[in-house]
Amino acid sequence: MRCIENPLITPESIPPTRADFEVVSVINPAVTQYNGQVILLMRVCERPISQSGKLRTPVLDLKNSEVKIKTFSLNDPQLQYSDVRVFKYNNRSYLTTMSHLRIARSSNGIDFVTDEKPFIFPYGPDEEYGIEDARITKINSIFYIYYVAVSRYGISTVLAETEDFESFKRLGMIFAPQNKDVAVFPQRINGKYYALFRPDTGDFANPCMWIGSSDDLLHWGNYTYLMGPRPNTWDSKRIGAGTVPLKTDHGWLEIYHGASDKDVYSLGLILLDLEDPSKVLFRSEKPFFSPVESYERLGFFSDVVFTNGMTVLPGTDTLMLYYGAADTCICAARLDMQELFGYLRIHSNR
Amino acid sequence: MRCIENPLITPESIPPTRADFEVVSVINPAVTQYNGQVILLMRVCERPISQSGKLRTPVLDLKNSEVKIKTFSLNDPQLQYSDVRVFKYNNRSYLTTMSHLRIARSSNGIDFVTDEKPFIFPYGPDEEYGIEDARITKINSIFYIYYVAVSRYGISTVLAETEDFESFKRLGMIFAPQNKDVAVFPQRINGKYYALFRPDTGDFANPCMWIGSSDDLLHWGNYTYLMGPRPNTWDSKRIGAGTVPLKTDHGWLEIYHGASDKDVYSLGLILLDLEDPSKVLFRSEKPFFSPVESYERLGFFSDVVFTNGMTVLPGTDTLMLYYGAADTCICAARLDMQELFGYLRIHSNR
Repeated sequence: MRCIENPLITPESIPPTRADFEVVSVINPAVTQYNGQVILLMRVCERPISQSGKLRTPVLDLKNSEVKIKTFSLNDPQLQYSDVRVFKYNNRSYLTTMSHLRIARSSNGIDFVTDEKPFIFPYGPDEEYGIEDARITKINSIFYIYYVAVSRYGISTVLAETEDFESFKRLGMIFAPQNKDVAVFPQRINGKYYALFRPDTGDFANPCMWIGSSDDLLHWGNYTYLMGPRPNTWDSKRIGAGTVPLKTDHGWLEIYHGASDKDVYSLGLILLDLEDPSKVLFRSEKPFFSPVESYERLGFFSDVVFTNGMTVLPGTDTLMLYYGAADTCICAARLDMQELFGYLRIHSNR
Repeated sequence: MRCIENPLITPESIPPTRADFEVVSVINPAVTQYNGQVILLMRVCERPISQSGKLRTPVLDLKNSEVKIKTFSLNDPQLQYSDVRVFKYNNRSYLTTMSHLRIARSSNGIDFVTDEKPFIFPYGPDEEYGIEDARITKINSIFYIYYVAVSRYGISTVLAETEDFESFKRLGMIFAPQNKDVAVFPQRINGKYYALFRPDTGDFANPCMWIGSSDDLLHWGNYTYLMGPRPNTWDSKRIGAGTVPLKTDHGWLEIYHGASDKDVYSLGLILLDLEDPSKVLFRSEKPFFSPVESYERLGFFSDVVFTNGMTVLPGTDTLMLYYGAADTCICAARLDMQELFGYLRIHSNR
């Protein structure tokens, strides 16, 4: 089911925002359709071009919201690497790259043209270290974009809206730190909006999926635990929402990500009750999709498939699942809806 | 300014909920007034009476919401003590005691009569390990009670309401894990409710105070960072809201807690803008109140003063500040409002 054209979009094809920067990855796109085109709102990760013996990372200058470069000596004993994505200096966390959100458009869902410039670029103290991993939920004619904002104060989720993918408006922080992997359902259910989210529960539990509700998409509450990692399986270490849930006859279909103890990221499939999405009707035992191909197994962070969205190509039975591969590039898989629904029918006993 | 009657309420005076349990502390009360009496909604921490060589802790049985006792051998190498309040077994966090909320009433603010039974007792999966540290905000004739709920999935804040302190109704989780130290302002400000809260920001930052807003007290959003710990001071390790903010001519008065690197908990004083409480007008450099007396310096967790509320005694200029001392007992301090306002006038330059 992987597209033979994979990877569809690679870092080499993305112009950096500055001549002295390089794009190290383009990943984890939000997915929607507008004006007859598939729209991907991609996370583009940049960093200053390397200098020997130095670690240089971009952060916002909070005085003027311009990007400045922080430089650390690799020999400095205060410097501690967590992994290739995160490091600590003097007990403060930093990211090795700064991300922004950029649009790619396609008429067939395969061949994409990427904007030269960012659509949403980090701004203000909440976005000091960058913005990442957007998802888009279309409700009526408004596209609600929500993305991960990273700052010295942690990882939060910010809501924005657009009607035309030309301009956008920030609406405020909807999930305070530590929260990511938010996925807003595309319609009210019994009068309420619902969202999946992934709080960081520190020493208590490996990261779990939760669900909350809202009257206005801006204020959230009624938080409930939905499901957690399963020890000694492919999703033992952490899980979080992937796609925006899709309404089917069998329930709300959600493709989520799970990481194993060895940080291999795969995708699983759940069905949530149509009337009460805090009820899990079905959860796949085995991963629905795992890193297999070389572009999924080797990259900036190896052994990763991670999705933020899917879309049904108009007039077809094809569900296009877009995903980040090895934290490096964007790929897609074609899912036959009839096949998928047959699978769900069998496994959900409905 | 400490009451000479301190401590006002001690664990020995509180009947446990079971004959085989002991009350180890009674602390951190929510404070309000009802029917001409000062009401404290106290956190009562209980545990099974000790047995040699064993660690026994109460948790809810999620099937029937009854308390059961989990027993661990102190020799078990899987057992790891964090501090006297928390331990880990097989990498899962537990508390050493289970807390519930109990009422004490007083006509003079000093002599309290304690209820024989809990007012709010842990119930359901969110409260598996107990409920702690309530605050009460009275809005119109409703007393909104919000308290910390602890479970295997972390530390959250749940909202309830009462009109009479005879019965109450749970309204839902308002801050998902990891969140505590919520303090709701007692009136709308420019049409919105506001609350201080304290997310756990993990590796990013020592715990900071944030502020959010709401239309209905149930759903919250528009989250903004308010202020953080100050390195190498009395509030360097973590800070969080204490009292429900009190409206004064000089701004919203908030007495917050801060812990030093050595986990000494003191109280500080801030003023927030009356029209925009996300603006800090004043923050005390030095602690306003620190552990000094023996009942504050020695106890279940030593060197702690921690407040959840204060109230102006009717017809007086006396602000009664109630606080937990050394995580063991409840004390109070009398603040002369004219003196306090004089201090604020000088320090806030207003």
